[in-house]
Parts: sequence; C-alpha cells; structure tokens
Amino acid sequence: MSATSTRVALDELRIAVGDRLVTSPSVLDLHARDESSFADRRPDAVVFAESVDDVAAVVRTCRSHGVPVIPFGGGSGLEGGVLPVEGGVSLDTTRMDAILEIVPEDMLCRVQAGVTRLRLEAALSEHGLFFPVDPGADATLGGMAASGASGTQTIRYGAMRENVLGLVAVTGTGEIVRTGGRTRKSSSGYDLTRLLIGSEGTLAVICELTLRLSGIPERIAAARVAFPDVRSAAEAVIAIAQSAVPVARCELLDATGVAAVNAWADLDEPAQPALFLEFHGSPAAVDEQVALVAAIAAECRGGELRWATREEDRRRLWRARHDAHFAQLALRPGSRSLVTDVCVPVSRLADCLEATAVDIAALPFPAPIVSHAGDGNFHCALLILPDDAEERAIAKRFAARLVDRALAMGGTCTGEHGVGLGKRDAMAAEHGAAAVELMRAVKRACDPDGILNPAKVLPPAPATA
Amino acid sequence: MSATSTRVALDELRIAVGDRLVTSPSVLDLHARDESSFADRRPDAVVFAESVDDVAAVVRTCRSHGVPVIPFGGGSGLEGGVLPVEGGVSLDTTRMDAILEIVPEDMLCRVQAGVTRLRLEAALSEHGLFFPVDPGADATLGGMAASGASGTQTIRYGAMRENVLGLVAVTGTGEIVRTGGRTRKSSSGYDLTRLLIGSEGTLAVICELTLRLSGIPERIAAARVAFPDVRSAAEAVIAIAQSAVPVARCELLDATGVAAVNAWADLDEPAQPALFLEFHGSPAAVDEQVALVAAIAAECRGGELRWATREEDRRRLWRARHDAHFAQLALRPGSRSLVTDVCVPVSRLADCLEATAVDIAALPFPAPIVSHAGDGNFHCALLILPDDAEERAIAKRFAARLVDRALAMGGTCTGEHGVGLGKRDAMAAEHGAAAVELMRAVKRACDPDGILNPAKVLPPAPATA
Repeated sequence: MSATSTRVALDELRIAVGDRLVTSPSVLDLHARDESSFADRRPDAVVFAESVDDVAAVVRTCRSHGVPVIPFGGGSGLEGGVLPVEGGVSLDTTRMDAILEIVPEDMLCRVQAGVTRLRLEAALSEHGLFFPVDPGADATLGGMAASGASGTQTIRYGAMRENVLGLVAVTGTGEIVRTGGRTRKSSSGYDLTRLLIGSEGTLAVICELTLRLSGIPERIAAARVAFPDVRSAAEAVIAIAQSAVPVARCELLDATGVAAVNAWADLDEPAQPALFLEFHGSPAAVDEQVALVAAIAAECRGGELRWATREEDRRRLWRARHDAHFAQLALRPGSRSLVTDVCVPVSRLADCLEATAVDIAALPFPAPIVSHAGDGNFHCALLILPDDAEERAIAKRFAARLVDRALAMGGTCTGEHGVGLGKRDAMAAEHGAAAVELMRAVKRACDPDGILNPAKVLPPAPATA
Repeated sequence: MSATSTRVALDELRIAVGDRLVTSPSVLDLHARDESSFADRRPDAVVFAESVDDVAAVVRTCRSHGVPVIPFGGGSGLEGGVLPVEGGVSLDTTRMDAILEIVPEDMLCRVQAGVTRLRLEAALSEHGLFFPVDPGADATLGGMAASGASGTQTIRYGAMRENVLGLVAVTGTGEIVRTGGRTRKSSSGYDLTRLLIGSEGTLAVICELTLRLSGIPERIAAARVAFPDVRSAAEAVIAIAQSAVPVARCELLDATGVAAVNAWADLDEPAQPALFLEFHGSPAAVDEQVALVAAIAAECRGGELRWATREEDRRRLWRARHDAHFAQLALRPGSRSLVTDVCVPVSRLADCLEATAVDIAALPFPAPIVSHAGDGNFHCALLILPDDAEERAIAKRFAARLVDRALAMGGTCTGEHGVGLGKRDAMAAEHGAAAVELMRAVKRACDPDGILNPAKVLPPAPATA
C-alpha cells in the first residue's frame, strides 16, 4: 500500500468513525508493541471501535484502499501478534467492553471482545460462576480467543477452544458473521467458531463471544510441593496425568522460577523445583484428590504438600504464579523477556525439560522455567537486554533449538501464545507443506485481499516461478 | 459430469486400484443408503481404499474427470450424508481398519478411519483406557469425526471435537494433509482438525485419527429413575446440569421411548418418562454424586433411583439404550425412522419437549423420544411406512416445525447427526446468510472443484443473476 492510499483511507475513516480515529504519537506508541521483545512499530492510526458496525466500517474502508487492519486487545501477547509490521490501522477493541448477558441457568454468558478476564470474573462470581480460561495476564476475551489462549486451569477445564460456544466476527470482506450458538454441542455446518479461535486476527476480527461457564467449586485447596530435581517433578506430573485425579491446576517451576516468584511476591518457597497444585470439588472429593496426589508426590521423591489453607494465602500464591512474567523480568532489571512456549506429549515432558536445562546452563542470562506441566506446556523466559544484539541472537538460537526439540518429540512450537511473528518459521516443519498450503487457502477464503493482520501466523508464501 | 467422463474415470481408477474398485450390484446397493429414510441412490462404483495413497489416487483421478467422491464408513448415518445423490464413487474406508498405535503414557491412540468404535473399545480396555465418544451405533471413527458425533457420555467427556487431537486427510485437490498433533493443546496455526470434524466428507476425506483417551473409572454405577411427566424429568436434568455433579450419562426417555426399550431388551421399566444415569469416579466420589442426584430427583417428583449394580445388568441397560434405534423400529414393523436431532440450551429443554409432545400427540404414527438431556439434545423417531407419501409429508412438516421451534429457543437443527441432505434447508435460518457464504468460501478453499460429497451440508447456492 502507498502512503497516499493510507492517507485517503484515513480521511474516509475519519468521516465514518469520527474522533474514534486517533493518530496522536502517544496512542500510536501504545499500539506499537506487546509484551514480546520484538522491535516497536507504530500503526498509521488507531481506531477505538465501539461496535461491530464500527469494526465492519473500518474493515470495508481499509479493504477498498488495501490498508492493513490489525486487531488490538489488551496488548499482553508474547509473539508480536498485534504489531502492525506493514503499517495500517490498529483496531483497538477495548471500548467494546459490555458484558451483554449472563445466563446462569445455561451456564453461559455473552460479552463484547474488549471485556477483560478479571472484570468478567468479578461479574460472574456474584452468580457462583467463573470462566475457567486463565492465561495469567488480564487479557481481553477477544484477544484470548484470537490467540487460542489457555492457562493454569486448562488441565481441568480446557482452553478457549473448549469454552467458547459462539462468536460474532467481521471477516476480511467486512461481512459480519455469527458462528456457533448457545447450545452445548452442535453438528450444524462447518465449525467456524474453532476456525477463528487461534487465527490471531488474520481471518476475522472477533467482536463478541458466547462463553461456556463453570460453577465455582464448593471447595478449593491449593498446595505446593518441592522436588530434588525437575525430572522428579515432571515424573510426578505424568503419574498425576495418568491417574484419574482431576487436578484443577498443576504448575511446575524450576529453581530459578521459584526464586523469581519468591522475590516478587515475598514468599519463602524452598529454592528447589516445585509443583503448585490446586484441587476443586466437594470437600470429600478434594480430600480424596489430595491424598492421591500426596502419595504420588512422595513416590516421586517430593516433599510434603504445603497448604495454602487461608483464602488470602491461596490468592497470594496464585497471584505470584500469575505475575511470573513480571517476577521474572525483575530478576534482571532492564531486561525484556523472550518467552518460549513449546508443548510436548506429557510423557516427554521430563526429557524435554532436562535437555532444555542443559541449554539453559550455557546461557549468559537467566532463563527461569514455568510450566503448565499437566498439559506438557512450558515456558523459558529468556531475560535479555533489549539492545544487546548478541544476547538476542543467542536467545533466538536457543528458542529455535527448543522448537526443534519439541517437534522431534511430537510436540508443537506454541502451546498457547500463538504464532504471531515469532513462530511463522516453524509452521512448515510442524505441519508440513500441504497443511500450510491449506491454511493459506483458508486465509484467502476469509480475507481475500490479505488486509487482516498481514505477515502473521503463515510463513511468507514461496516465490512463484 | 457425463456418463462418458465417469466411464473414463472408472477405467483409470481400475488401473490405479485394481480389484478394490467394485461395481457389482450388491455392493452398489450396500452403498446406496444409510440408516436414514431417504430414497436409495446407487453410486457408479465403490472403491475399498486400503491406504491414504489409495484415497489420494481416487480423489485425484475423480477430480480430473469431475466425478464425485463420497466417503463411506459404517453406513449408520441418519441424514443421508453418504448418499451419492449425484452419482460418482463411494469411497469405502472400512478396510482401513488398523489400530496403528496405543500410547497409554500419553492417553492417546492413532487409528485408521475404518476402525469401528467397539473394536477400539476392546483394544483399549486391556490398557485400562477408553474412548468416550459413544453415538450408540458401532460407527467407524472416521465417520464419527466426519459427522461431528457425540453421544451418551458427551455431557462428561465431550464430543468428537473435544476428543480428536489430529487427523490425516485428503482434500479435494488430492493433497494429503496432517492436522493437529499429539499434544493436549496447541495454538499453532489454524485449527484444521476442528474444521474437518463435522464437515461430513465435503472438505476432505478423513483417513487417520489421533484420539484422546480417558482412563476407565475405578467405579461405574448406573441407575434409572421414573418421573410422572417429561417436564419433571427435564427439570431434574437442568438442576443436575447446574449442580457441579459430573454425571457421565444423563439420558431422558419419554413413556413411548421406555416402552420401546422394554419390548426390545426384555426390561420391565415403569411405562413413564425416565432418566437413565451413569456415574464415574472413585467409590467415594460416585457415592457423593449419587446422593446429590437422588436428592435432586426427589425434589423434581422423581421416584427412587433403581440400580443396575451388577456389571451384567448395567451392560444390558445401556445396550437397550444403544439399541434404541432398532427398538423403536420394532414398535412398528415395516417402518423406517425419520429421526429428528435438535439441541437447545438446557434451560429450554422442558419447554421444547412439552411443545413437541403436543405435536406428537397429533401424529398418526408412533414417535418415541430419547434425549441426551444433559446436553439439551433430543431425538424423535418418526416411525413412518417408507412408501406412504402422506406419512412422509406429515413427518417432514413435523420435523421442520421442530427445527423452527429449536432455533427460536436459541438451539441448533442438529446436535450430533450432522446436516447431510436432511438439514441443508435449515442452514441459513440457523447461521445467517453471511456465515453460510463463509462456509461456501471455505468449501471452495478445500475442494475447489466441488467433487467431495456434493449437495451435502451447504444449501444450494443462490442463482447468480
């Protein structure tokens, strides 16, 4: 696109959306980055959409001028998914923040895309309900759906894919589509809902979501247990996964990860690898789960289960885990975090963690590990100084090796952060050329002019002869 | 396609697949119908594929001559999804019946598409594992994925969508694509797996599946409880759904449904609406679930919970439920069943069932109801004489009214049987024109020449001016 066509598009947009279009430098800067370590890149303008019709107007206008549209939610992504690398309009959804409906009798709610996780949690708790996908950050629900988010409770309750019933979204042609519905299941036509979940704004802009809710359990108990080494902890996780125990959270931190959390949240966990666990259910069910997990931990050389019995202690424990990203950054002031995100079959988790620990030992910067271990998913936070080209190069090599290792073990390059800019190069290796070509065909079907979040998810197309 | 191009295609296919191509009348007849009441229609030939390469060869050859390819599994579908309504090649997958791998440590297995549900169940039970999607019929796993099947245990374990990790499939261009993988979750690229699940062979031919398994619970208890009327039973279901009780099965039969099962399986259930329930878990967890459900049933005017304590009795009970289709047909010798399949939000189940009962009372033929009530999904088996045009017309009007009623309640026209031929007309009403157009675009992306299972799922395209 040329600067002229962008200028014309912005002029038209200003007529359509008025002062919801903003080009002030401070606002452009806020939309020039996410929580990844990619270089900032300003959009040409930001539109603060207030309705589905606003979104459709922006997409239609931008399409007619070939100007990119990049959906922007909470800005908490870790793979550069919201960076306007080809310029264009950053479409901010945070003003679309209405909780439209809560239907306790059907255990569902309907929200606009800009509603944030913690605000929804507060609104649902009055009804004894909660939305179980919990990525840590206070992300928008739209962003969580776009990135296919999951989190600490996915082992028990599933990821966004399992907890979104339907969407309202605007495709690359500016059409408003309604997908899915309000029923717990359906075999009616192609599953456009799951197609859009995890498509990172490249197929459509998610504007509204119907979410499946869960009942707040009668009893919640949290505990942590330390292990002499990461392998022992990972073996306990495998045993837990194979038992029928429906643990609600099963997080693994290596010794550096525990140290980060200790310092950040003023905890005094032993400086050893640890599992942070949570159990949901009736009092009797929780007691039974706990007894089984305690026995497994003991068999795997774990210590005693240490309880966070008071609600306040439990919240502090999980806040510490949720703040892991910031806790880790605090380990090295001035650093930014290049966060890896591989996921492997659970049986390979110990192998993958051990091989990765060898690589970490050779790094010139800290790289704490936190793992949604019950899902086989773990993150290394590579704490590099943003302006140090050598550190960045080392981090990128480390991350690429880790992806190769995970793929060799039957894993995936991203368990939950999405592809964004950072994992495009792994797509062909993970999925094969035919599946990538099919993804390209699907992209053309939804966004024929390629204006939605260009240069994300799919690798650059091979040059045609 | 012309008769000539079909003949040329079959000649080419015979060279490619040899005597796996069959045109004998008896084999054509077996591929001319499913369990629906649609009129039989023979394919031009049947190919018994033995490998993914066979499938790819058939698709490529047929594509080059514009000949339809219709995947065929167990033939147990209820919406005409496998009928070759435009002729062509019926691609029988039942010889692709290898269980390729069972990996207990990752709770997964890999199977070819023609493996049947009961055979897989037998193979998995040795490992203490089971695959929880259970549509009743001994369908092929490929067919279950293609139709987005679910069943009696979906309330607890999810449908195919939640239990298929990955696929190998052949698209309409003859490309072999691998989707998904072996991990419990991933955010890597578009979710092609879920796109193909429920696409009924119109986007790709499913050849291989990686399935997520569950551990056989330590204790299983089954019970049934009778209610004075359907509303009371449905209200008990709503209360169970809102409680945190993880019932494994929660099936509702109306009095006619109970009578059909009694006669078929030599049971002596009271001739009243009933819930058939199952509980999975540790002994203590099951006891607790049972106590809660018994209290709910009592509050909703239900009778005592009657137990099938012996394994043999439990199996007989569920076999009776699984055989419901045949039990119902036996209510009226010589009949075929036009089976409805709406699903509504659980809170509307009682309303929908009651309004439907009024319509049933006016029918000139029996129409027993069985319901996966915990999911809001129910079936009326309209037992019509196949050659009676008036009965067929009445049944079709009844079914259309029921779909309208379900949609008005926020429901779907098909909870689990798929669209096939029978529900195409409801697609626009359920999803809206924009979503149907997007589905069409996705269809073109996967099958640009429209040779895969034509005239299914999507309604006929509007005439262009």
